[in-house]
Amino acid sequence: MAEYVRNCWYMAAWVREVPEDGFLARKLLDRSWLLWRNPDDSWALVEDRCPHRFVPLSRGRFADGRIACGYHGLTFDGTGACVHNPFGHAVPDTARISAMPVVERHGALWFWPGDAGRADPATIPDFAFVESGPATGKSHYVMGVNYELIADNLLDLSHAEFLHVESFGTNGSLFSHGAQTVVQDDTGAIWNKWDMTGAPPPGWALPMLGEGATVDQILHIRWHAPASLALFIRMTRSGGAEVIAEMVNPHILTPETQHSTHYFFTHEPGPEAEAMARRVFLEEDEPMIAAQAEAMGDADFWVLKPLILPSDAAAIRARRRMMQLRRAEQ
Amino acid sequence: MAEYVRNCWYMAAWVREVPEDGFLARKLLDRSWLLWRNPDDSWALVEDRCPHRFVPLSRGRFADGRIACGYHGLTFDGTGACVHNPFGHAVPDTARISAMPVVERHGALWFWPGDAGRADPATIPDFAFVESGPATGKSHYVMGVNYELIADNLLDLSHAEFLHVESFGTNGSLFSHGAQTVVQDDTGAIWNKWDMTGAPPPGWALPMLGEGATVDQILHIRWHAPASLALFIRMTRSGGAEVIAEMVNPHILTPETQHSTHYFFTHEPGPEAEAMARRVFLEEDEPMIAAQAEAMGDADFWVLKPLILPSDAAAIRARRRMMQLRRAEQ
Amino acid sequence: MAEYVRNCWYMAAWVREVPEDGFLARKLLDRSWLLWRNPDDSWALVEDRCPHRFVPLSRGRFADGRIACGYHGLTFDGTGACVHNPFGHAVPDTARISAMPVVERHGALWFWPGDAGRADPATIPDFAFVESGPATGKSHYVMGVNYELIADNLLDLSHAEFLHVESFGTNGSLFSHGAQTVVQDDTGAIWNKWDMTGAPPPGWALPMLGEGATVDQILHIRWHAPASLALFIRMTRSGGAEVIAEMVNPHILTPETQHSTHYFFTHEPGPEAEAMARRVFLEEDEPMIAAQAEAMGDADFWVLKPLILPSDAAAIRARRRMMQLRRAEQ
Repeated sequence: MAEYVRNCWYMAAWVREVPEDGFLARKLLDRSWLLWRNPDDSWALVEDRCPHRFVPLSRGRFADGRIACGYHGLTFDGTGACVHNPFGHAVPDTARISAMPVVERHGALWFWPGDAGRADPATIPDFAFVESGPATGKSHYVMGVNYELIADNLLDLSHAEFLHVESFGTNGSLFSHGAQTVVQDDTGAIWNKWDMTGAPPPGWALPMLGEGATVDQILHIRWHAPASLALFIRMTRSGGAEVIAEMVNPHILTPETQHSTHYFFTHEPGPEAEAMARRVFLEEDEPMIAAQAEAMGDADFWVLKPLILPSDAAAIRARRRMMQLRRAEQ
Repeated sequence: MAEYVRNCWYMAAWVREVPEDGFLARKLLDRSWLLWRNPDDSWALVEDRCPHRFVPLSRGRFADGRIACGYHGLTFDGTGACVHNPFGHAVPDTARISAMPVVERHGALWFWPGDAGRADPATIPDFAFVESGPATGKSHYVMGVNYELIADNLLDLSHAEFLHVESFGTNGSLFSHGAQTVVQDDTGAIWNKWDMTGAPPPGWALPMLGEGATVDQILHIRWHAPASLALFIRMTRSGGAEVIAEMVNPHILTPETQHSTHYFFTHEPGPEAEAMARRVFLEEDEPMIAAQAEAMGDADFWVLKPLILPSDAAAIRARRRMMQLRRAEQ
Repeated sequence: MAEYVRNCWYMAAWVREVPEDGFLARKLLDRSWLLWRNPDDSWALVEDRCPHRFVPLSRGRFADGRIACGYHGLTFDGTGACVHNPFGHAVPDTARISAMPVVERHGALWFWPGDAGRADPATIPDFAFVESGPATGKSHYVMGVNYELIADNLLDLSHAEFLHVESFGTNGSLFSHGAQTVVQDDTGAIWNKWDMTGAPPPGWALPMLGEGATVDQILHIRWHAPASLALFIRMTRSGGAEVIAEMVNPHILTPETQHSTHYFFTHEPGPEAEAMARRVFLEEDEPMIAAQAEAMGDADFWVLKPLILPSDAAAIRARRRMMQLRRAEQ
């Protein structure tokens, strides 16, 4: 499996996932971490592992922004410093746990696993839209596959015609009326834009549009390294400004391990809307990507010599960008 | 684990296992394959793996001898060629899936995983007997151990005296009255022949034979590389031609993986006879061979320096022949 | 994982665990063994693996101090010699199974996996106390972690203040009134001795002692390589000879594998007392040590650079002694 890119912002959690007066334990990039809000309202992200005998600190007791190990009682604060030894002896400075920069932005918490001196919050990808619009439900789901396979899936939306034919399919208009554009914007994001012009409308929109009407549709997806994506959908009456449907959603992916991924998404409020979003991931995407992962085993994507089609342009560009970032960090 | 021998016929399935208008998905020699009957009645055996993103094609849609990938729609025919791309672009010739020669013979389908130019159907081992005789039930079972351990088991039938003492045991006549002959015939088969002469009959035959009668019994097993075996049993009144019992059965073994084996067998028709045959494999043979496999771990049979007894002559000869075949392919 | 020390006594079982007229099958130091009492009342400890096809002999038939393989019938005695081949052929001398010296001592059976010529029963650690005193129940439990992690746990009893705060905690008197001494005695044992002088008594002892009384308490643990420990606890009225509580218990650890350990312990007679002892191991110690083992993965203890505190002196000394023993055997 390919190395993680370190000098990059990753999403750790939604703010609402962290309990009041407690901590959230989460595995990120193969290591275990604790995330909590300090008494001064700043955030702490420290390693969930005591340097004495390596047990998870999450088995200990948390209070007032400090966690005491449940095995022999060493206590650490949100900077990772050891602030108490029950035996009273001084504790060497080396008795600290790792900590990572963490920043709150638009209801999400972002961390930087690389060189802390290079962590500039201005480069966190823009997901301001999650604080407006109808998709106010913020959820999280762990998918049992590598994050780059999920990014591949999202960067080639033609899979909807096969995998989501019963839910999000476009009746083939992607193939019959679609034009694809792949661009990089000045934030470094790679966009895969499908524009369908003068296409037959979906069945549910027919009564609204009248006989013979056609629609223009955009299906644009934006990717920031390592795998923070946003999906923009809009349908208008052909040649007009009347918006028939519009949607924008984050699909933010953070590796839990090389074989599992935190998938952060939004949906309209309420458990039914969440269940529907989750069902598509669970029943349509995950089994296919898991079958792909099993078939690939531990082999590298490129070593397997995948067949590359013109429609893969965006996914391939994103994978090449990841290769450049990895090379730069070696 | 030892390499698979490639230039050899292996059994893939019974013809009756392949659904009409559908395909059979089966793992063979560590790779996943699809087996179907083409519209022209020929057979297809193609790899169950799309060259685009490596997902199993068996998750797609099959019709008219073609399978469409369920992820992005590439479609393949029974030769392995890509015959459709939904985006309309030409697909490079490299966009094909592997295919193997497959031949129907006496109700079974045989494949040749090596050099297709050397695949001569005349060298398929002779199992014509499965189309006559009482054992018309054709079944398949996956045993969770390496195929060579099962071949060892079958090539030393003395195990019946211990493992099958309640089902197929011969009351020790193998030890008291048996003479062993190990020969190779002109098809390359290795035979292990036990002949018991003038032995006491089994309990169930006593009423039929009368007081003091003895029997002559043959217990012959034939092995073709890699592990296609046939078992011949016949019991006659000593010195006479009267046949008291006669049975011939295939025990055809094809590796699914290095740690699991397709076991093809026959039995008298009906679910009860199948259940009885299956029970012996499941409850008597498999637990013992699985315990053996666990004890051996991933070590090679020879490296563990097994104790070799005179009664092992046939099994050892078969293992030596496999070594020669492997060496010839390196 | 570190190599096992070979020239050392390990406990195999309590005598009472070996069935009359039968055998006990037990995995010890990664290999499978059979333990039985011979007809002459001596003990046998032989490998549970037939040299012919490597199946476990425990799947065969045992009678009169001999075990017959359940696969092809080779039969072995308690010295490991093959004493019967059903085919009647002579069996070569190499057809034997491994055997280890085994000695009965104070209700326990001890074995020596190294050079049998060096196995001196006089060096078996002294656990005579298990035959007197109230803790006459003798039990065994398999803990799913490496034995050295359990020895570390026992050699630093301060963990009781956190992990066993509801069961064996000392209300912090270890920290407030404790003095630690670490010594090696002339049997080679390493002792970690905590002595608490003039400490406040535990709640349950208050009525017995009267207002204002204090207690002196010893908490001494003794370690013999590889991991055979004894725990001595005694509480007296401060400055007096009146014994308020006294307890001595074996905590004898034998590796089953590198990742699991036979834990031999005693308790007051009866199922309730056993259940209580087991509950502490199962619910308090094991989850913490298992979490530690998971965090450590397959890394060596020293390679992970543990933080070493003054309170770790005994555990570190025991680990250093194990390193010396390993080095001497290389």
